[in-house]
Amino acid sequence: MDEKTLEELIEQKKFLEIKSEIAKMNEVDLAELLDPLDAQTTLLIFRMLPKDLAVEVFAHFSMEQQVGIMEAVTDEEAENIIKDLFFDDMIDLIEEVPANIVNKILLYARDDERKLVNQFLNYPEDSAGSLMTIEYVSLTKELTVKEALAHIKEVGLTSETVYTCYVIDKNRKLEGFVSLRKIVTAEEDILIKDLMEDDIISVSTNDDQETVANVFTKYGFVALPVVDNEERLIGIITVDDIMDVMEREVTEDFQIIAGTSPTEDSYLDTPVWQLVKNRLPWLLILMVSATFTGRIMERFEAVLAANVLLTTFIPMLMDTGGNSGSQSSTLIIRGLAVGDIEMSDGPKVLWKEFRIAILAGVILAGVNFVRLLFIERVDVNIAITVSLTLIMTVLTAKLVGGILPLIAEKLHMDPAIMAGPLITTIVDALALIVYFLIAKAMLGL
Amino acid sequence: MDEKTLEELIEQKKFLEIKSEIAKMNEVDLAELLDPLDAQTTLLIFRMLPKDLAVEVFAHFSMEQQVGIMEAVTDEEAENIIKDLFFDDMIDLIEEVPANIVNKILLYARDDERKLVNQFLNYPEDSAGSLMTIEYVSLTKELTVKEALAHIKEVGLTSETVYTCYVIDKNRKLEGFVSLRKIVTAEEDILIKDLMEDDIISVSTNDDQETVANVFTKYGFVALPVVDNEERLIGIITVDDIMDVMEREVTEDFQIIAGTSPTEDSYLDTPVWQLVKNRLPWLLILMVSATFTGRIMERFEAVLAANVLLTTFIPMLMDTGGNSGSQSSTLIIRGLAVGDIEMSDGPKVLWKEFRIAILAGVILAGVNFVRLLFIERVDVNIAITVSLTLIMTVLTAKLVGGILPLIAEKLHMDPAIMAGPLITTIVDALALIVYFLIAKAMLGL
Repeated sequence: MDEKTLEELIEQKKFLEIKSEIAKMNEVDLAELLDPLDAQTTLLIFRMLPKDLAVEVFAHFSMEQQVGIMEAVTDEEAENIIKDLFFDDMIDLIEEVPANIVNKILLYARDDERKLVNQFLNYPEDSAGSLMTIEYVSLTKELTVKEALAHIKEVGLTSETVYTCYVIDKNRKLEGFVSLRKIVTAEEDILIKDLMEDDIISVSTNDDQETVANVFTKYGFVALPVVDNEERLIGIITVDDIMDVMEREVTEDFQIIAGTSPTEDSYLDTPVWQLVKNRLPWLLILMVSATFTGRIMERFEAVLAANVLLTTFIPMLMDTGGNSGSQSSTLIIRGLAVGDIEMSDGPKVLWKEFRIAILAGVILAGVNFVRLLFIERVDVNIAITVSLTLIMTVLTAKLVGGILPLIAEKLHMDPAIMAGPLITTIVDALALIVYFLIAKAMLGL
Repeated sequence: MDEKTLEELIEQKKFLEIKSEIAKMNEVDLAELLDPLDAQTTLLIFRMLPKDLAVEVFAHFSMEQQVGIMEAVTDEEAENIIKDLFFDDMIDLIEEVPANIVNKILLYARDDERKLVNQFLNYPEDSAGSLMTIEYVSLTKELTVKEALAHIKEVGLTSETVYTCYVIDKNRKLEGFVSLRKIVTAEEDILIKDLMEDDIISVSTNDDQETVANVFTKYGFVALPVVDNEERLIGIITVDDIMDVMEREVTEDFQIIAGTSPTEDSYLDTPVWQLVKNRLPWLLILMVSATFTGRIMERFEAVLAANVLLTTFIPMLMDTGGNSGSQSSTLIIRGLAVGDIEMSDGPKVLWKEFRIAILAGVILAGVNFVRLLFIERVDVNIAITVSLTLIMTVLTAKLVGGILPLIAEKLHMDPAIMAGPLITTIVDALALIVYFLIAKAMLGL
């Protein structure tokens, strides 16, 4: 059912038809369908949903809709939603909603959950701790396959995943894991300790979500255990949650690389004024910085006045410098994000960029020299000046572009801010200084 | 065990110790550990692995190592590897290796697989068909939970995932799906048709892998069915395979946005000369294009000569234009990639960028006007010229940056090529023309 059909059916008050149509839909599509509707209509349709589906749809609503629903529903309905919500979704909700809703949520949360809420709220934002859920299946070594299956049957529907079960000792120390695939394909009387794998790959509560995403991508797991300093199992992170995180992290990197403040809203849903606010700060900073290049030109005004032709090569030099620097910085930023490059690789990166810059710079300068001399037919001294500057600019750009993201990482800043726009501004200024110094020397100005 | 320990143990010929250490490791880590070793040492250690683990490690080797191993092993060993390899891994191998290895692989492939190989090799690169595997669990509606579990127990170890089982009719038409979680938590005598869900979300064999990745992220599935035109189940794609694809797609977008040819090798592993070859084409194209801006300046040389001060604002105008355009194009490129923006949104995007540009442009120009008049103390006509040009430049940049990625998508090109570098070059030329025309009018030159 699409939005238009739904609106028509609502207008015609064909509620029975709506009820039978929506019960067939996937919870994600349903949440998407209801999200743009006004609070009252959403509530009307939300109440038609079977109880299980309603909670799943609720978990996929936007934060505004969730708050709207929580404010509008009866206490009994609120209790039903909260009790069936997975713990990580509940934590997400608590982190965002106003205090009166938080009280409502805590009132209806299960006793064991309420105690954990405070602990979870204390994990740093974007850490493994803030992503994990407590609803996992834990087994012990001495269980048989039959006993394990009986346990899974009992707790399976309230666990976020049953596909990886975790084996813990009496102190909750993680001893191994076993996939449900292994359990269902094994004979009934085999012991879990003979099925489990003990090459545990885990993350700790304070690990950054980007680290967690890279572990998932590398090993192809459906779930990952989160442990504390004493290797005790605290929670798990499931692959569906981390895929959202990966997409958001990448979008954030794109936004920062483009020089805008990161936002989680989609482009079309963000109001114009908000987009202006996201984009303006960097544009202002970079505009003011770019006036320094103007100052440099003013200082060398005599050189420019003596040979106006020199100014016509400035755009080409600036653009080539900017592009060379962006290439290096963007690839290093991505390498850092996926874990291909580490901070300690600084010297390797610089040496590599140095060699690339010399090769690329000499080729570009060569092409440029030939073009200037034989097509544009400029004076050979000018051709040499421009071509030498080109080599120096490419070299500067690639070294600056290669090292700044690593420095940002070292300073615990997001390397993505060291992308094209900033590099371009820095390289422009350096390129102009080099250009005028070489011009003065070569042309005797 | 790390690389250094392994090398020491090899040198000391402590093979028993190596054997017991590697058997404990995760297959991904093992493949990573062995990959840099020479072919002979890899083979030596590869042969120490338990048979099951060996095949898993093989699947995670780089293509070069896989070919090396296939060339070096005995026929019996090759047969063992090929028979246990998942079908999608086998297809990947066949697509890359030389003909003599292909023959070896086909010789040892299972009969039913051999017939399918040709069909699979015909799916377009980067399509759902080229990603999928045929090793899934299919059930029929009339089975009981007990019968279904017995079937899963039988085929589970040779299926790439057992966590989503697909319900098909006698013509292989997909009727629904049921999660293993539902099966293991249900009573033994319940029928699959009462457990299964029929709101099927599927992709078709020709769908692009980016589309497939977006479906996974949206719905949070662990597997997705691939169907043909008649809704018959052809294969499945699992979440671990799609996570690799997502990471590669994003890295490719980053590379193209930075103006380099996409490559699958990591930065540190790519030779300098290869990196130069990846980066040089765009640098050359953009350098030559940037000379057009030089030509424009030559045409207006009289204006520049009459007022050299005008040249000092060119870097600021060019940079602000480039940054404004990059912001728009990068966000649109990302929006297209994640499916937030579609081709049909062209008019909405242009209208949004127009309003953003006017707001941002006027604010930037205002700041700039005040700075020029009161700090730099330039002539009011020059301040007006520069500020008006700034508004026009931001407007041009945002419209060009907003629309070019959509045009690329329409032309079935990768929108990512319409990123910063290209936009900057186009906007530079337009900005200069506007600048000189306004200057001529305002300053009467």
